[in-house]
Amino acid sequence: MSVKVVILGSAGGIPTPERNLPSILISVDGEIILLDCGEGTQRQMMIAGYSLCKKMKIFITHLHGDHILGIPGMLQSMSLLNRVHPLEIYGPKGIKEFIYKNFDICKPSFDIIVNEISEGEIFSNKKIKVIGALADHSEENIAYSITIGASLGKFLPEKARELGIPEGPLWGLLKSGHSIKLENGRIVKPEEVLGEPKPGIKIVYSGDTKYCEKIVEISKEADLLIHEATFASDLSDRAHEEKHSTAEDAAKIAKLANVKKLVLTHISSRYKDTKILEEEARKIFENVEIAEDFKTYDFKV
Amino acid sequence: MSVKVVILGSAGGIPTPERNLPSILISVDGEIILLDCGEGTQRQMMIAGYSLCKKMKIFITHLHGDHILGIPGMLQSMSLLNRVHPLEIYGPKGIKEFIYKNFDICKPSFDIIVNEISEGEIFSNKKIKVIGALADHSEENIAYSITIGASLGKFLPEKARELGIPEGPLWGLLKSGHSIKLENGRIVKPEEVLGEPKPGIKIVYSGDTKYCEKIVEISKEADLLIHEATFASDLSDRAHEEKHSTAEDAAKIAKLANVKKLVLTHISSRYKDTKILEEEARKIFENVEIAEDFKTYDFKV
Repeated sequence: MSVKVVILGSAGGIPTPERNLPSILISVDGEIILLDCGEGTQRQMMIAGYSLCKKMKIFITHLHGDHILGIPGMLQSMSLLNRVHPLEIYGPKGIKEFIYKNFDICKPSFDIIVNEISEGEIFSNKKIKVIGALADHSEENIAYSITIGASLGKFLPEKARELGIPEGPLWGLLKSGHSIKLENGRIVKPEEVLGEPKPGIKIVYSGDTKYCEKIVEISKEADLLIHEATFASDLSDRAHEEKHSTAEDAAKIAKLANVKKLVLTHISSRYKDTKILEEEARKIFENVEIAEDFKTYDFKV
Repeated sequence: MSVKVVILGSAGGIPTPERNLPSILISVDGEIILLDCGEGTQRQMMIAGYSLCKKMKIFITHLHGDHILGIPGMLQSMSLLNRVHPLEIYGPKGIKEFIYKNFDICKPSFDIIVNEISEGEIFSNKKIKVIGALADHSEENIAYSITIGASLGKFLPEKARELGIPEGPLWGLLKSGHSIKLENGRIVKPEEVLGEPKPGIKIVYSGDTKYCEKIVEISKEADLLIHEATFASDLSDRAHEEKHSTAEDAAKIAKLANVKKLVLTHISSRYKDTKILEEEARKIFENVEIAEDFKTYDFKV
């Protein structure tokens, strides 16, 4: 399975000539997961070579304009392009009202399912699992952990037979990760009859937040943590007052969560040169880089 | 006086990697007039080198999403940039509701004056005069004629004296373009005591419309007519059904109005190569070109 993570917009609240407003695209075997949808996201998608007509789910971190104002225009273009697939949108309370109140302008001609969600397990299918965590921002912000291609280990029939488990429904329960109880009262856990599980690829996106332990929790061992770093530490007072992170804050999260790679995004327009952010983070966490629009991270699962 | 006309977005209803959604900027000695404000316009302005904090008036042709969805994000950025100047927005009935219903998202911190207007004289000051004409689209669409730097001729005191007009309030009336009545009953028209008037620069923008005589009227002798040409004539049935123009329609308007230059815009995303549009129009009107994002037209008044 091929997974691509494309930074569509790496700006903070105000775009710059180089950085569009926040959005990150994850392509999983041609299906699209969009994390936030700032103004201009539809065009960034086109420039990056992704169609608006594919299967797609949008996860919104919070209801500040720079993270959602790309939705109405995207819906209008999808309609003009005769999109067929329904579109699923997930976001905090209030996302429904925002989307529905602009329906008269964007006139969507396909099904839209809007889900108001909070923390915990948000979505799960055979390929993808999405977990949300409430971060710490001036507006309710959900950080997302997306695990792709994780699976239980292969079922080992010989081990099941050794344990005296009769072939049939009990095997099915164990294969799907459930414990069972044998007639003799013994509990068999699935890991006793399954091979090595596949961890899949884990990608975490913070949205807007100040330093937040909950993001450490959902980022444990992530392959990629995309964390906001609106400011450098010379503006840490302002960052914390406005409930944003510094590059140092983001690096601490990456270190504590033992992630493989950290990408800093939501860069304030004041930083024409982002060295100060990168160097500050690197003192704490080595494998860090600054998000740039259209930078792509490839994974094989 | 220096006047620059910058195409910020030349796309039709759907953006392309090359064309942003509709917007045209006119800079008059540093003040800005924006015609339409499709999604992404604020960033196009930045790329073109124009600040969001300058004196600015926005004129909206109609309430289709591709012409207005850049407004909420622009208002948010203006607030974050601590804009001081009030912002004037003009557009057809419904523009107020659209702007106000997104205030909770974009939280403007400066004064916004929204004017719902129709055809006729819309705005006028010493430098700029804006006239609107109802065009012919599926949604009420106002085409705009903007005349910049026009002035009455210089007042000629010797002519006034010759006609026996006493120095005083009557001179003032004539200077400002009003006719007067002398004691002997004779009517004096201002042109009898004024030198050659300055025509200024006239720029006309159609918005979305099928072929419409009213646009001929407001475009008479214009220096620049920016007219929509969503399709070429091979799709004239579709164009007319959807109340859009072909390149040929736009060229006919330019010819009848005897404009100096025609620029075709609102180009459908189907035309990767725009030669077909340009050639079709040139058969009717020689001085035509296709709008491209960031193309600039300079005038001295």
